Amino acid sequence: MSIIVKKYGGTSIGDFERMHHIARQIKSSLNDCDKQVIVLSAMSGRTNALYELAKQMHSEPNPQFMDMLLATGEQESISLFAMCLQHYNIPSQTFLSFQAGIQTDSHHGCARIASIDSQIIHRALSDMPVVIVAGFQGIDSTGAITTIGRGGSDTTAVAIAASLDATYCEINTDVAGVFTADPKICDAARCLEKISYEEMMELADAGAKVLHTRCVELAAKYRLPLIVKSSFLDVPGTWVVPEEEMEEEIMEGQVVSGITCDMNEAKVSIRHVPDKVGVTEAIFAPIAAANINVDLIIQNVSEAGYTDLTFTVCKENLRKAISLAEVAAKRIDAGHVIAAGDIAKISVVGLGMRSHAGVAHLIFKTLASEGIAVQMIGTSEIKVSMVIDAKYAELAVRSLHESFELDKNLAILSE
Amino acid sequence: MSIIVKKYGGTSIGDFERMHHIARQIKSSLNDCDKQVIVLSAMSGRTNALYELAKQMHSEPNPQFMDMLLATGEQESISLFAMCLQHYNIPSQTFLSFQAGIQTDSHHGCARIASIDSQIIHRALSDMPVVIVAGFQGIDSTGAITTIGRGGSDTTAVAIAASLDATYCEINTDVAGVFTADPKICDAARCLEKISYEEMMELADAGAKVLHTRCVELAAKYRLPLIVKSSFLDVPGTWVVPEEEMEEEIMEGQVVSGITCDMNEAKVSIRHVPDKVGVTEAIFAPIAAANINVDLIIQNVSEAGYTDLTFTVCKENLRKAISLAEVAAKRIDAGHVIAAGDIAKISVVGLGMRSHAGVAHLIFKTLASEGIAVQMIGTSEIKVSMVIDAKYAELAVRSLHESFELDKNLAILSE
Repeated sequence: MSIIVKKYGGTSIGDFERMHHIARQIKSSLNDCDKQVIVLSAMSGRTNALYELAKQMHSEPNPQFMDMLLATGEQESISLFAMCLQHYNIPSQTFLSFQAGIQTDSHHGCARIASIDSQIIHRALSDMPVVIVAGFQGIDSTGAITTIGRGGSDTTAVAIAASLDATYCEINTDVAGVFTADPKICDAARCLEKISYEEMMELADAGAKVLHTRCVELAAKYRLPLIVKSSFLDVPGTWVVPEEEMEEEIMEGQVVSGITCDMNEAKVSIRHVPDKVGVTEAIFAPIAAANINVDLIIQNVSEAGYTDLTFTVCKENLRKAISLAEVAAKRIDAGHVIAAGDIAKISVVGLGMRSHAGVAHLIFKTLASEGIAVQMIGTSEIKVSMVIDAKYAELAVRSLHESFELDKNLAILSE
Repeated sequence: MSIIVKKYGGTSIGDFERMHHIARQIKSSLNDCDKQVIVLSAMSGRTNALYELAKQMHSEPNPQFMDMLLATGEQESISLFAMCLQHYNIPSQTFLSFQAGIQTDSHHGCARIASIDSQIIHRALSDMPVVIVAGFQGIDSTGAITTIGRGGSDTTAVAIAASLDATYCEINTDVAGVFTADPKICDAARCLEKISYEEMMELADAGAKVLHTRCVELAAKYRLPLIVKSSFLDVPGTWVVPEEEMEEEIMEGQVVSGITCDMNEAKVSIRHVPDKVGVTEAIFAPIAAANINVDLIIQNVSEAGYTDLTFTVCKENLRKAISLAEVAAKRIDAGHVIAAGDIAKISVVGLGMRSHAGVAHLIFKTLASEGIAVQMIGTSEIKVSMVIDAKYAELAVRSLHESFELDKNLAILSE
């Protein structure tokens, strides 16, 4: 039997009218495939409301209690949605994670799915056309309820689709698909027809919010085709596919797939760092121990045995990172610690970078022509990231988008 | 180890201030017993709010979906309450029914507890002083979530207490205990110090809302002492105990324990019923088949081969009962069907009735002296119930309360 897994986010089922809209979509697609598995998030606003309730009880609630509380959000949405399908005479069965055998590790709040007992949903699908599963949650080996972090319902959907060997997994959301840039800051942004898993992971990592890295990672691992589409608009959406299926696009010269802008990082500089073996270790070891992710790092050329060291962290970790850096600076006899939050990280992502030279050159030429100074640079095989002054963020995205001709159906390297 | 099971209803944990109040009570009682199991209902208003949500999706939601939705209420309250205990540095562990091994049958909405895996809670109690369990819900043999009906959290608490061989089970509620009559209609009503299981069951059956029959039945089966007390007032409450422990009270002449008034029944009369074998079967079989409980039945003396038949049903079933009675009346060639909703059922309950004559006589003398006509009578070994005109309900309760001297510490049969 052919199975399609469809995930709907909080805004897609944000109120009863929207639930009815989705139920009608499902009804009209009942003939397109044999069976459908619907994975739902909590209705929009519900998870935040539950966080608020918890905060009133305790400033740092035990994560195990928190997960049990949060899990009510999806339990509510799947029960109500099942009643909505009932209204359209569509038989369905609802599954919480303990019922669907969704096992995770025990990292409350950010658990990882370890296994899914695919037989359970398979059996249910042999009796009825639609099965509804609570996203975002799992059960650890002790039977405790876990949650798999914000955006976790996407991961649930992909994991279920992989375990059921589904034809594909549909991520229904409030945007039309994956865009060449954020349409809110770049009018010319275009919805991509196709993107590779790797590009999507880099875009997600670089701040594109449409999909979470882990969900794409999982889809890539099982070579499961993903489609990201709007649950409101009748538009085709974006397929996320294996790299081989992108060959045609790359052959035709699509070098860059997307440009992202991440305003959520901050910069920490340590001045006058003695240029000796072991100093970077002394600085970064305590930061890693505090579970703070360091993104970009630069170190100036050494002058008279001293250098400046700059790195970026997520804004929410800035305060903690500064105090750890100050302690380390003292220990290694370095100078002041200076921090700046008014930065933007602009990333240009594209598989074509592997085979096309000149991408970095075009990036820097574009930024220079707009008078935008690049403060830091980081690269991967298919990505170039730059830290710039926050006030130039939108301008940088728009001018790079234009330089790489991303508004055209295929972006041709114009040199 | 000594274990006490404490159940708190929706109003007891109705808001955060009340949760804190209960948490402080638990903290101050940590030395009174080794271990405490806290069973919670949903916060007050929550279950009704969930019913409202469901009603917006479907007029008759699938009971399986309904149970999954309703179960979020207790999941929310136990998680939040655990955070509240955390605030007072009381370690605890929360248990949903699937985690505590609370197995029920599959009658969604009114399931019965079949078994509890007492080892699970026992193990948790060896690690920490307090365990918190979601009331009202269970898991059937297929793993589906069930609920055990309104007031089900009391039953959960008693079942857990029985399975753990607890010292006693405390039902904390919004009244001070079990009263000789409803204090809202009878100023002289007195909170009982003790009552027997059997009396409590008859009172519950007869409309006293403080405890549900099933919960008392279960306590009686396992001879588990129950105490009903207020979670707001510091008053002793009422113990519900085996009959043997009531011997002193009965010896001293406590004939009647309580008087209830149930305004929730309606009366259906079928006129001119042929007085033949099989007619009552023809009338009551379809009513039983429709799952409608018939409470009292009277049949007039036959005159010229015809009789009148009257019975009472719950008001919510009245419409259905009338139409079934009309069909039956036609089939057996009986006359009109007449219904009346303006009745009250007054019940007088007491173990002492078994050994004391004259109780019925005193009842009827009292009502007659107030000019109250008795329309129907039903009796059990320890109960006399009467249907009267609804407008006399309060007067009947007050005058019977006075006749049986229930305002005094021991009610002496005054003849």
